[in-house]
Amino acid sequence: MSERHFADALLDACRRKRSQVVVGLDPRVDRLPAELRPDATCEGRAQCVESFNRGVIDAVADIAAAVKLQIAFYEQLGCAGMAAYAATIRCARERGLIVIGDIKRGDIAGTASAYAAAHLGGSAAISADFVVDAVTVNPYLGSDGVRPFVDAAAATGRGLFVLVKTSNPSAVELQDLSCGGALLHEHVAALVEVWGAPHTGAGGYSPVGAVVGATFPDDLARLRALMPHTLLLVPGYGAQGGGIDDVLPAFDAAGEGAVVNSSRGIIFAWRHGPHAGRHGEGAWRDAVRAAAAEMRDALWQATH
Amino acid sequence: MSERHFADALLDACRRKRSQVVVGLDPRVDRLPAELRPDATCEGRAQCVESFNRGVIDAVADIAAAVKLQIAFYEQLGCAGMAAYAATIRCARERGLIVIGDIKRGDIAGTASAYAAAHLGGSAAISADFVVDAVTVNPYLGSDGVRPFVDAAAATGRGLFVLVKTSNPSAVELQDLSCGGALLHEHVAALVEVWGAPHTGAGGYSPVGAVVGATFPDDLARLRALMPHTLLLVPGYGAQGGGIDDVLPAFDAAGEGAVVNSSRGIIFAWRHGPHAGRHGEGAWRDAVRAAAAEMRDALWQATH
Repeated sequence: MSERHFADALLDACRRKRSQVVVGLDPRVDRLPAELRPDATCEGRAQCVESFNRGVIDAVADIAAAVKLQIAFYEQLGCAGMAAYAATIRCARERGLIVIGDIKRGDIAGTASAYAAAHLGGSAAISADFVVDAVTVNPYLGSDGVRPFVDAAAATGRGLFVLVKTSNPSAVELQDLSCGGALLHEHVAALVEVWGAPHTGAGGYSPVGAVVGATFPDDLARLRALMPHTLLLVPGYGAQGGGIDDVLPAFDAAGEGAVVNSSRGIIFAWRHGPHAGRHGEGAWRDAVRAAAAEMRDALWQATH
Repeated sequence: MSERHFADALLDACRRKRSQVVVGLDPRVDRLPAELRPDATCEGRAQCVESFNRGVIDAVADIAAAVKLQIAFYEQLGCAGMAAYAATIRCARERGLIVIGDIKRGDIAGTASAYAAAHLGGSAAISADFVVDAVTVNPYLGSDGVRPFVDAAAATGRGLFVLVKTSNPSAVELQDLSCGGALLHEHVAALVEVWGAPHTGAGGYSPVGAVVGATFPDDLARLRALMPHTLLLVPGYGAQGGGIDDVLPAFDAAGEGAVVNSSRGIIFAWRHGPHAGRHGEGAWRDAVRAAAAEMRDALWQATH
């Protein structure tokens, strides 16, 4: 077992920075700043993504509690994109940021162990390229598909966030099915508490967190109560429609226990919204910083 | 829309080769043949994985209907592993094999589109590195998380297999919950038929297939009947415990409509079982070939 504890480390980062902001590094190559115009090769585009991420990380390093990399946007760039993913992880680590890999993996036992070793490290790890502080995990395969991630998290002091209720419109289709007196996502929520229970940290939270979207505020309040030892990672804020009032139910009585992700609303703040329209080289980074700070302050004031 | 159609192409490959065998390329670096002993670097290990895969592909190219790459074992090797994944795809393609990427991805709409572009190609594709003929997809996020894969499959003539009932012991935990008169995995099965319906091919099957494990034979028969237009990809044969009798219910009345995956039972046939113990350089490939041929013949004779 590790001296580190993911939940305690994330709570500590939030307190130190007075911030519950997670900045989503979901770069889309067709939306990068003009000064980072890529050539047409995958390598050139991946290089621009990496430069863009470095700029965002520089801008938000003292404001964000964590960054979250949506790996799909890197896989889309092929092998060069995976190198940019690895380089971005290293860059964020060097700036002291907690790094969440939004990989939504899930597979049967032996394969789940390979994924856990790839993304959370530990004794079975071969490469450190993709190792982050926490990953997102899909629960559809059940306990033996999730436990390898829990075990790796407990052994390394890292963490995971299990998809409980996602932020997309179709989330209701399966996740809200009523199964024997409880909704499917409530069954998952109960499992999340079970998986995390042996590993609760000093702050009362386990390294097994949950993803609960901001787009279903009533669910957030109910799930906060159902999972008292579970950190919530809340997507859906900003561009997906969730506002401050929508995310408040995710926090505990002390204004802790949750972090809120915004991707487009921060990293593309120079393209649209109140911080757009700044001019000059690097001005996009000022807009990113201003948007992140505004979100930080709004969340902190509403919860403290 | 494409001239190609994944389901028709897979049915055709099965008929031509008189084979319903999918060989799982799930290499584990600690179990490679002695003649491929890697050095300790990730690059060295990834190179050995690639050489091993080339050997397996050479041995089974005329026997297997398809190969299936479990991407977790490549991610575990970091960036070098992803290059080996891409190289293995190219090698299998060159040998005329249908290639299935066992990636079990699933995410919300825009992100699902990025995954679909990464792994199925199409107009939104940037890199061809990871593009395969079909992928596995996790349904937990619902229709808007799956449709980008369906759309990409329809546009490119490629396919997908949605996880319906997986082969692991904990599959029952969520997938067998009773939700309003049907089990959760039956709800998913109904969605699979809906997603595939507009795209049914000349052979009566759509490019939206389903994963149903061989370890639950009763489910196989029921799900074959519930999804008459859905190709089944059946894992769990061999090392996971499923035998010929267990997988027969996956096939339709003509002995078609399903393919059966074996990974360890074929690629590591030289390590254990009736084909082990051959000696001399390259003897491991003879064992791989013999195990694949034996499985092909057993399946074909039982279904025709």
